[in-house]
Amino acid sequence: MNTMEKPMTNGIEKAWLPIQASRSARNTINPIRRIVDRMKINPNPAKEMISLSIGDPTHYGNMLPPLEALEGILQSVQLPTSHGYVPSFGTLDARKAVAQLWSRSNYTLKPENIILTSGCSHALEICIKCLADPGDNILLPRPGFSLYITLCESLDIEIRFYDLIPEENWQINLTHLESLIDDRTRTIIINNPSNPCGAVYSEEHLRNIIHICERHHLPIIADEIYADMVFSNQQFHFLAMLSENVPILSCGGMAKRFICPGWRIGWIVIHDRHNLFKDTVQPGLLDLSSLILGPNSVTQAALPYILSETPDSYFMDILNQLRTNAEYFYNSLVNAPGLQPTMPQGAMYMLIRMNPSDYNDIENDKEFFTKLLCEESISCLPASVFGIDNFIRIVLTTPTEKAEEACHRILEFCRRHAKSIT
Amino acid sequence: MNTMEKPMTNGIEKAWLPIQASRSARNTINPIRRIVDRMKINPNPAKEMISLSIGDPTHYGNMLPPLEALEGILQSVQLPTSHGYVPSFGTLDARKAVAQLWSRSNYTLKPENIILTSGCSHALEICIKCLADPGDNILLPRPGFSLYITLCESLDIEIRFYDLIPEENWQINLTHLESLIDDRTRTIIINNPSNPCGAVYSEEHLRNIIHICERHHLPIIADEIYADMVFSNQQFHFLAMLSENVPILSCGGMAKRFICPGWRIGWIVIHDRHNLFKDTVQPGLLDLSSLILGPNSVTQAALPYILSETPDSYFMDILNQLRTNAEYFYNSLVNAPGLQPTMPQGAMYMLIRMNPSDYNDIENDKEFFTKLLCEESISCLPASVFGIDNFIRIVLTTPTEKAEEACHRILEFCRRHAKSIT
Ligand SMILES: Cc1ncc(COP(=O)(O)O)c(C=O)c1O
Ligand SMILES: Cc1ncc(COP(=O)(O)O)c(C=O)c1O
Repeated sequence: MNTMEKPMTNGIEKAWLPIQASRSARNTINPIRRIVDRMKINPNPAKEMISLSIGDPTHYGNMLPPLEALEGILQSVQLPTSHGYVPSFGTLDARKAVAQLWSRSNYTLKPENIILTSGCSHALEICIKCLADPGDNILLPRPGFSLYITLCESLDIEIRFYDLIPEENWQINLTHLESLIDDRTRTIIINNPSNPCGAVYSEEHLRNIIHICERHHLPIIADEIYADMVFSNQQFHFLAMLSENVPILSCGGMAKRFICPGWRIGWIVIHDRHNLFKDTVQPGLLDLSSLILGPNSVTQAALPYILSETPDSYFMDILNQLRTNAEYFYNSLVNAPGLQPTMPQGAMYMLIRMNPSDYNDIENDKEFFTKLLCEESISCLPASVFGIDNFIRIVLTTPTEKAEEACHRILEFCRRHAKSIT
Repeated sequence: MNTMEKPMTNGIEKAWLPIQASRSARNTINPIRRIVDRMKINPNPAKEMISLSIGDPTHYGNMLPPLEALEGILQSVQLPTSHGYVPSFGTLDARKAVAQLWSRSNYTLKPENIILTSGCSHALEICIKCLADPGDNILLPRPGFSLYITLCESLDIEIRFYDLIPEENWQINLTHLESLIDDRTRTIIINNPSNPCGAVYSEEHLRNIIHICERHHLPIIADEIYADMVFSNQQFHFLAMLSENVPILSCGGMAKRFICPGWRIGWIVIHDRHNLFKDTVQPGLLDLSSLILGPNSVTQAALPYILSETPDSYFMDILNQLRTNAEYFYNSLVNAPGLQPTMPQGAMYMLIRMNPSDYNDIENDKEFFTKLLCEESISCLPASVFGIDNFIRIVLTTPTEKAEEACHRILEFCRRHAKSIT
């Protein structure tokens, strides 16, 4: 009997020791959420806080979900049929709506190829888990969205980073990418338009990526949550529409395009022209979706209305605000000592290179971040959380007057810390 | 260069092979959802379908969320502050509301001890993942909710089943339970009130469970999603309120009590009087919650209103409907040849023993299920999906007239297949 193994001596039970969390829990570290949820640094009490740190466009109320989205919810919450369990991969109507949203004249999506998830994060979790086992490796962009790292580490999957080239609008260093592939490589995550870079890849660049995957028979996970969020002179291409043979799992969601990140509506679109996913990957994705089931049923019920009724003008207006802010930040900060902004092509972020040697007392991006917060009550993100040092990421979703005030303070801050020119 | 390893011969590329899903995806099998989502058997076209299979109380419209829940959503969807990202473990107000809901005069919960999740399923996933690593073992009830198995197998955690005793109202066989514990045992899942048994454990039984865990220094995962859903002569006790030393993670949610399973609102309540979870388990739970973030922000915003304003009469009414159905099914089916129902004490299910030797041509519970569906268009669940053979699970949430019709058809069915008494 096992009771014997933990003996009670003289009626006194052995004391409890702290319970150890699993290795997997201890390996689950999200650098951004850790910084943001548990931030301990105090901003300057004399200055109103301005947040340029979190990709939450609703923060200031200048960007909100479309009215059609609210109408959709108001309608569907009143239907008696909106409250029950739905298939774990999503209702047929909601999947049809997503299929329709992203179908193009030369490329029709079917509802069978859509799986609804609890946000794009959940979509990514399912795809990664379905394609790789512990010990396998996955190729991730550097700099890149930190959740990829968190998910892979949590699952004990080896990470190999491929470099993005700042001087080439953050395109992928394809030679470097290809050199990382070996027979334990299971997939490559491609993020376009990208966080934190704001890059939008050209058709040619995307075709080059596909060629590499074709050569190595590698499926792709395309994180396309910023699909269509590109500035006027750019064009967005779904990776899958350019791929003849390479099977692709495209992850997306409503968070950014419909400005409702809290709603937790995401999806996987399965692109598999040659049935390479059919035997085990597609069933595996479905089974993984059944572990916690998909997103809120009321929102699923509202999805067809929301996706079909939101007018183009809504998206135009959001993109205009983003581009205006991008230009404003660029034009102001290009003059700040030690800073070198890159003009983004899409998404909602700007990466700014900071040069420590231009400052008296700022040694790296983390210190820039902390001091800016303490002195100027401005929160940004040090790009080291994305895997690249000495860049700063700012979000472009603030109201114009906040953007102006932020630029003003950042300029002051940089001047104050700059080495005087001798 | 690795390109060499997959050579192209004469310009003809090697053909693609099907992509293999990961082991973990292939090990993720949810017997219930597989049966339900992918059911291929055809019901009898001459008879209207009656579903007694899925624990979705909204199915027939006789049980719906409280009006206060709909009001709460209508209000919160119109607030500009309801659409953004919220902390991955839930908003403070929502966590306060849950803490208040389950606090008792002698036991106060704090919002710091609550983590909001995407349904109770997600709560269970996080707790299991946080306490056990591949190769560790967890003790699960047999019969028990099948998701426990799916989650453990998906995570490569060894499962050890402890038996429940049908003759003792499905109480736990404690000797058997204790005999399974060894030094790789990380936790025990206790489900009370229980699915599929409808059992409600007495204070004494719960104290006996706690004593075992105390002896072996084992934390408990208490699946208390049916908290307070007990019939008149029973009393529900939170396990944590009876535990002095054993740390407990209680998983719960709105799905059953507020009749809104599609909303995906669940929670973990961390009970840790002696800070045994503090160092690694509590942070681990928080980190795991950050992977996909918690439930829909609009619903979180509505939670304080819903949880405080829903009147007691709402819950009474639901319980009355459940008990009335339980009595009706019991009194009818006790007379059916080959069936032996057990009267449930809570939750929303009844387990019915079926005796194959009483029938001419029904060999086990799966065959009972298939034939009942084909011939009578009634779907129930064969309890073998819960780990016990030759029982049938029915749900008690149907409208009275459907329950009557179902009983009538089941009786006919059993008589038709019964061996004639010689
Ligand atoms: C590149 C990228 N992918 C995925 C996500 C997560 O999206 P969701 O909020 O839908 O989980 C984000 C959010 O910031 C992102 O930037
Ligand atoms: C015992 C038990 N636990 C957990 C759940 C899952 O609850 P949720 O729908 O909130 O994920 C169920 C659902 O049937 C259940 O019966």
